[in-house]
Amino acid sequence: MAISRLTPSERDEALTALAGWTLSEDGRAIARRFTFADFNEAFGFMTRVALLADKMDHHPEWANVYNRVDITLTTHDAGGLSQRDIKMAEAIEAF
Amino acid sequence: MAISRLTPSERDEALTALAGWTLSEDGRAIARRFTFADFNEAFGFMTRVALLADKMDHHPEWANVYNRVDITLTTHDAGGLSQRDIKMAEAIEAF
Repeated sequence: MAISRLTPSERDEALTALAGWTLSEDGRAIARRFTFADFNEAFGFMTRVALLADKMDHHPEWANVYNRVDITLTTHDAGGLSQRDIKMAEAIEAF
Repeated sequence: MAISRLTPSERDEALTALAGWTLSEDGRAIARRFTFADFNEAFGFMTRVALLADKMDHHPEWANVYNRVDITLTTHDAGGLSQRDIKMAEAIEAF
């Protein structure tokens, strides 16, 4: 099944509900930085996201330095943001 | 205990034994890219590195996109590479 890209209005509506996430300059990705008490807590969070990613078969682009985790979500197959990115961001927020 | 920075000769000697790791331009960090079959395998590797990092109290700067993991090691307290980075790189290689 092809994954369709969100329209600009779908995208803006979804982003309104995702406080803390910002749209990339080209409008094709959303990103958020998460800060934790320490590495242990940051990696605990990453593990939860990884289990989710494996289950959803949708994967974040992310970086970690000590207590900080930077997550970028985009759908390469759709050439931009899809509903999958929004679902994943919502699930991450629920952690 | 202060962590001392490796001398250039100590650093070069250590790097000779670490195939695949490259020195950053400023000589203060080493980096290597690891490629796996898929995300599941890449994150399995990251989990092993995270347990090691937590135990060593020394943390990588790293990024992951699907099956790829980019690791950079440096010791901020020493202003460059220390024996800790070499030990961590050796331990990662042993995985």
